[in-house]
Amino acid sequence: MKKGNMLIAQSGGPSMVINQSLVGAVLAARELKAVGKIYGALHGIQGILDERFVDLRKESRKTLEAVANTPSSALGSVRRKPTPEDCQSIFKVLRKLEVRYFFYIGGNDSAETVHIINEEAVREEYAIGCFHIPKTIDNDLRENDHTPGYGSAARFVACAVKGDDLDNRALGGVKIDVIMGRNAGFLTAAAALARQEEDDGPHLIYLPERPFSVEGFVKDVKAAVKRYGRCVVAVSEGIADQDGTPILAKFTQEVDSHGNVQLSGTGALGDLLAKVVKEQAGIKRVRADTFGYLQRSFPGIASATDALEARLVGVAAVEAAVSDEVSSGSVAIRRKATKKYGVEFAVIPLRLVAKETRRMPDAFINKAGNHVTQAFLDYARPLVGVLPPCARLGQLREG
Amino acid sequence: MKKGNMLIAQSGGPSMVINQSLVGAVLAARELKAVGKIYGALHGIQGILDERFVDLRKESRKTLEAVANTPSSALGSVRRKPTPEDCQSIFKVLRKLEVRYFFYIGGNDSAETVHIINEEAVREEYAIGCFHIPKTIDNDLRENDHTPGYGSAARFVACAVKGDDLDNRALGGVKIDVIMGRNAGFLTAAAALARQEEDDGPHLIYLPERPFSVEGFVKDVKAAVKRYGRCVVAVSEGIADQDGTPILAKFTQEVDSHGNVQLSGTGALGDLLAKVVKEQAGIKRVRADTFGYLQRSFPGIASATDALEARLVGVAAVEAAVSDEVSSGSVAIRRKATKKYGVEFAVIPLRLVAKETRRMPDAFINKAGNHVTQAFLDYARPLVGVLPPCARLGQLREG
Repeated sequence: MKKGNMLIAQSGGPSMVINQSLVGAVLAARELKAVGKIYGALHGIQGILDERFVDLRKESRKTLEAVANTPSSALGSVRRKPTPEDCQSIFKVLRKLEVRYFFYIGGNDSAETVHIINEEAVREEYAIGCFHIPKTIDNDLRENDHTPGYGSAARFVACAVKGDDLDNRALGGVKIDVIMGRNAGFLTAAAALARQEEDDGPHLIYLPERPFSVEGFVKDVKAAVKRYGRCVVAVSEGIADQDGTPILAKFTQEVDSHGNVQLSGTGALGDLLAKVVKEQAGIKRVRADTFGYLQRSFPGIASATDALEARLVGVAAVEAAVSDEVSSGSVAIRRKATKKYGVEFAVIPLRLVAKETRRMPDAFINKAGNHVTQAFLDYARPLVGVLPPCARLGQLREG
Repeated sequence: MKKGNMLIAQSGGPSMVINQSLVGAVLAARELKAVGKIYGALHGIQGILDERFVDLRKESRKTLEAVANTPSSALGSVRRKPTPEDCQSIFKVLRKLEVRYFFYIGGNDSAETVHIINEEAVREEYAIGCFHIPKTIDNDLRENDHTPGYGSAARFVACAVKGDDLDNRALGGVKIDVIMGRNAGFLTAAAALARQEEDDGPHLIYLPERPFSVEGFVKDVKAAVKRYGRCVVAVSEGIADQDGTPILAKFTQEVDSHGNVQLSGTGALGDLLAKVVKEQAGIKRVRADTFGYLQRSFPGIASATDALEARLVGVAAVEAAVSDEVSSGSVAIRRKATKKYGVEFAVIPLRLVAKETRRMPDAFINKAGNHVTQAFLDYARPLVGVLPPCARLGQLREG
């Protein structure tokens, strides 16, 4: 067993359960003789560069458990891809602190950061274990059945669309809900979990995995209104045209250091689609909501399964780091092939999850490209858990 | 005790607990010998005009209880102010059904509808009891301490801003949250309940009760960023300039039959304010979310106090209707002057709640007009209940 100090940080977009992973890793490490000091860097690698740390051995178990159940990143976050110069500065600090274990909780960009740091460390023969702990509400990490953060965000989306569908049923018209997800439609697809009866919304779901055409959209909405007398649409913020240009990219220019266009924190896409439906489908009452940051930060509604798994990937990363088997890697979640839902964890090479993302498999998307399949519902339900019960009057039930 | 059939309907914007009032009234009426048939009209007075009804004696208690806990208006809703011709058509239907008791659940516009129908009935000497059951997430009914629907919507807002503030703390910048409320700032003000420590957001709150100036807003944001290193702003969709023109009215033209401009279902105001902060305060990361319809329809998070009171105003309306004391009225909620929170119900003349609304009292708004006072927090807390606990690491706590 290799002995040394540990540093942990959080990166990228927060989630409802990313603190579970932090606390899982910290509490596991505190039990281990191999781990000395436990530094928490504030705002990811920025906190290493700025030498801003907290001592995670100092925090009481009670505080840590309360933090675990709190949304967002307790250590603060950052979106920063380290340059070779950054790596040099980072190593200088890490060597000074005698850090032997480095853990970084985040998505594919964060995995890329760990990968870059690990490669540099190997090159410099700096013996530091570099581990990525998965987190993303987008659910787009490769090699994972699903990722911590997704189940809770999906639960928010499913609840929100369920309530919104009831609202639309009461007042009619067309309602468009814009949901997070840059390249992958998993979170938007979760809106389908809101459906209990055949005529429940969402009646249409548009994913970034299928090219979005305004004509097709208007035609679909008209058909749904004809059939149901109203229409609820779930649409990903990342929908793109035939050429792969995000529909929203035409309206915004902000780009982060990983080259991503800002898609969230604006109502522009929803308003654009609402305008199209009003004008081209001739429907008067059209409303659009953009769920925005609430999807990843709403307190008190995390999926229990998601919270538990987020905790366990933190533990698994620490266990892998102190073992003699690997010196770097990312913890991946694999679903057991059993009938009853269950998962197991694997430690995989960083390059397999870094940078590139995965998208929804074809089997999860219907042929028309405007809804999901039963296979997706079966996939997502155990991650999200049972939703709050909603009921209609018996005389108003379908059929 | 006057005997006859009863008709009940829902009107205006749905809420998380409007079905509690429906079920409260129906279950109370089912116990009474004075009440014969119980008609539920679909989509408010539109359902009377179209003669679309359900038989509310037919629904099982189990179904009704499940419906009570379901957001939105189970009977459907409408925004329609009855013309004198509508009243004639309505009476024709009500007389045919031998309706002796008419209950309408909604806000000030719905109270106006009941008032119009009652006045016509008096003129025509049609002996029908006309009762308004209060509901509005805006909390703007006159003569009421607060109104059913508000506590639950306020709970959503407080939770959402709490999570969003944690999210902003992790990634920094300025976050603007646009909250419902046409003329009254009560719902926006509820964002303040999110605060636990002095440096928690929302750092600024803008209400329709105070004129909004772009210059003042930019100055406030700059000062907050200087002080906290970041800034979370809660702003009412109904903010208006010095002349009383809604800021958003410059961007939309849609008007309903009560003369209200459409403020919800668009992200335009948030995007406008974000643009202003980016350009005039020179801050790079600025995001805006418009909470939209989720505020009134999110399942599973209703305030327990709000749900109970919504149930009880339904019961109180039925009890008043079958008594010999009044032939029309609205149920108003009065807060007891006791130290421990409690309410009592009064039946008041319809004209006192119809049409005109109330606004936040001055005592609830700070001197600068950009936040709320302790008096507001004391007022709102019992209506909203205890929020999900959120915690920071001990070393990152203020002071």
